This record gives sequence, structure tokens and C-alpha cells, in this order.
Amino acid sequence: MTDTPSFLDEADGTREEIMKATFHALCEYGYKDLTIQHISDEFGKSKSLLYYHYDGKDDLLLDFLDFMLERFEDQIPYPEGGSAADHLDELLDQVLFDPRSSDFHGFAQAMVELRAQGAHDAEFREHFTRSDEFIRKQIARIIRKGIDEGVFRDVDSRRTATLLQTIIVGTMTEQMTTDDDRFEAIRDETDRYLQRCVLADE
Amino acid sequence: MTDTPSFLDEADGTREEIMKATFHALCEYGYKDLTIQHISDEFGKSKSLLYYHYDGKDDLLLDFLDFMLERFEDQIPYPEGGSAADHLDELLDQVLFDPRSSDFHGFAQAMVELRAQGAHDAEFREHFTRSDEFIRKQIARIIRKGIDEGVFRDVDSRRTATLLQTIIVGTMTEQMTTDDDRFEAIRDETDRYLQRCVLADE
Repeated sequence: MTDTPSFLDEADGTREEIMKATFHALCEYGYKDLTIQHISDEFGKSKSLLYYHYDGKDDLLLDFLDFMLERFEDQIPYPEGGSAADHLDELLDQVLFDPRSSDFHGFAQAMVELRAQGAHDAEFREHFTRSDEFIRKQIARIIRKGIDEGVFRDVDSRRTATLLQTIIVGTMTEQMTTDDDRFEAIRDETDRYLQRCVLADE
Repeated sequence: MTDTPSFLDEADGTREEIMKATFHALCEYGYKDLTIQHISDEFGKSKSLLYYHYDGKDDLLLDFLDFMLERFEDQIPYPEGGSAADHLDELLDQVLFDPRSSDFHGFAQAMVELRAQGAHDAEFREHFTRSDEFIRKQIARIIRKGIDEGVFRDVDSRRTATLLQTIIVGTMTEQMTTDDDRFEAIRDETDRYLQRCVLADE
């Protein structure tokens, strides 16, 4: 069971209600088995209203991905006070988590399937290019702040952020497409990498 | 265009011919648009022969994944002589490459889609559990050899192999589902991780 994210609890207006219905239908059926009918059943209004706004399932899902990315962007705070090391930890807790042990399971399964559409579909690829770049930029900004503060080594911030973003995508993909649970080992070894390669010597 | 792997060039017998036809049809159409008819067209024999051997598209693709994994396993040499550091480099060249710049592009696109089936399908998930574990074991074995030789630090070989396997999956997934090319940065930063966290000080 996947919990409703708080920003969807107070769905206000037609688009937000469609987005909420899409979220629940997607978590229940996954990408492959999802139909406009399933979304319409969740929505409680006729399919024709969905077809009035969207060309079809993929068009609706692309708008859904944009909608979710905008909310996600709002949830990532711009760190003002505090140390860069703490900010990096906080950000990693938000993006490098175990999708299995969270209320997020059904949504994470669907996200892995939606991302895979990018292999053959330019519009999905464009979305994931944008969302990956958003996270990469946040990480790189925190690393630059840490270098300025002298708490991080003088590393290449973009390159470090790129590897961390690859670990985030790899973790989500592996945890959702295999039966072995590797999360603890991944997170521990990522921390060891940060300790030895990014954080300055004490 | 994806080249035929050498072991499929000399396809011998019905199963190998079906596997070769599946390889080409999958590279051309991807998972979602692939039909038994496409495979039968490549195969040059009737669809009924395919249905005699397989229950349908997914059943055939699961056999195809097994077939490819067996061949891949045979290609990974058991390193006897030479140093563990060289073996690790050689293995990473085979599994952490840029799928875009290789003849492997169409196949890599299809593999990302096939892996994503594991999000909702236990049989695909079982396959990718097995194939990920195969690579993880190879990496861990080389790391243990390097520790014994004194050329690697006394690291947790399983944990190190787990992070490398996550980077491999993340690289394949990101390179195939986004438009930005991040391969060089990923590989360079992975080398920096190996240098600082795995290889012993000179």
C-alpha cells in the first residue's frame, strides 16, 4: 500500500484531482497494466473528461511526472544555515532511500517502469533528463558549499554529483527489479566513499 | 544498429535460431512493441513453431535472458595469472561501458525495458536477481584475491562489489533513459573511488 503524499491530500481543482487519481491507479496497476479506465474509476468522473484534457495514457502520465517533479522540487529546501556535510546527509536521506521499506513501494515500482519508457520514447527521456539534472545540481551545489567552507576536499563537484546520482538511480532500479535486498550495503559503502573521497580529513 | 554477438553468428539448432531471431527483433522493436510475429518474421518459420515451444512473448523472452546470461557467464574468464587490479579493470571494461557508443545500443535499450518488467513480474525479477548476483560474485572474488595479494586494502569485498554493481545498473539505466551523456564522469569518478577506497597505498 502506498500512502498519498501530503500535497495530494488536499487535491484542489480538476488537474490535482486527476493527478491524485493517477497516483493511486499507477501505484495499484503499474505502468503496463494501467488504463485510462482505471484512472477514471479512481477519479470518479467519466473517461471523456480525461480524454478532453489528454491525448491518452502516456500524455496523461507525462503531465503527472511533471506535476510530481514540481512538488518534489518544492520539497527540497535550499539549505541556508548549518554545515554542508549535514545538508548532503539530509539530501541523500531524501533521494537515496530504500524504496521497499517505505510507503513509497508501489510508486517506486511504477517509477522504474516509467523511466524505462525513456529507452524508446523521447518525451519520457526528456523528463528523466530534467529530473536527474535537478538532483545532480542540488548535490553539486552542496558540494561546492562544502569546499568553500573547507569541510570537503577540493573535488570536482559535478563529477562527484554525477556518480552519486548514478548510485541513486541504480539503487532504485536494483531494489525494485531484484529479490535481494542490498540497500544497507549500498548506503554504507556510499558513506565510506563520501568519507574518504569527499569529506576533508578531520 | 546492433551487431550480432559472435556466439549467435553460428546459431545451430532450433533454439539457437529462435534466440538469434529474438535478439534481432528485440533490438529493432524494443520490449513494448515486440510481438511473436516480429520474432517469427526474423526466424523465417511459422509462428506456430514458436507457440509450440513457448507460451507467449514473456515466456520466450525469459528463455532468451537465460540463454544470454549463460553465454555471458562463459565470456567472463576466470582470472588465473596477473594482478587483481588488472583483473578488476578488465572486468569493469566488460560490464561498466557506455551502451550508447557501442554496437550494443539497441540491445541495451531492450535490456533496460526487460529489467523494468521485474518491478511487477516475479519471473523477470528472479532472472535479474541471478544475473546481478553473478557479476557481484565475480567482482567480490577479484577483490578478495587483491586483498590476499596485498594490492587492495582490507575492505569488505561483498559491500564493495555491491556498490560497483549498483553503479553498473545505474549507468546502463541512466545512459538509456536520459539525453545527457554522463559516462565519462561516472567512469572517472568510479576510478577515483577505487583508487582511494579499494587499492592499497603504493
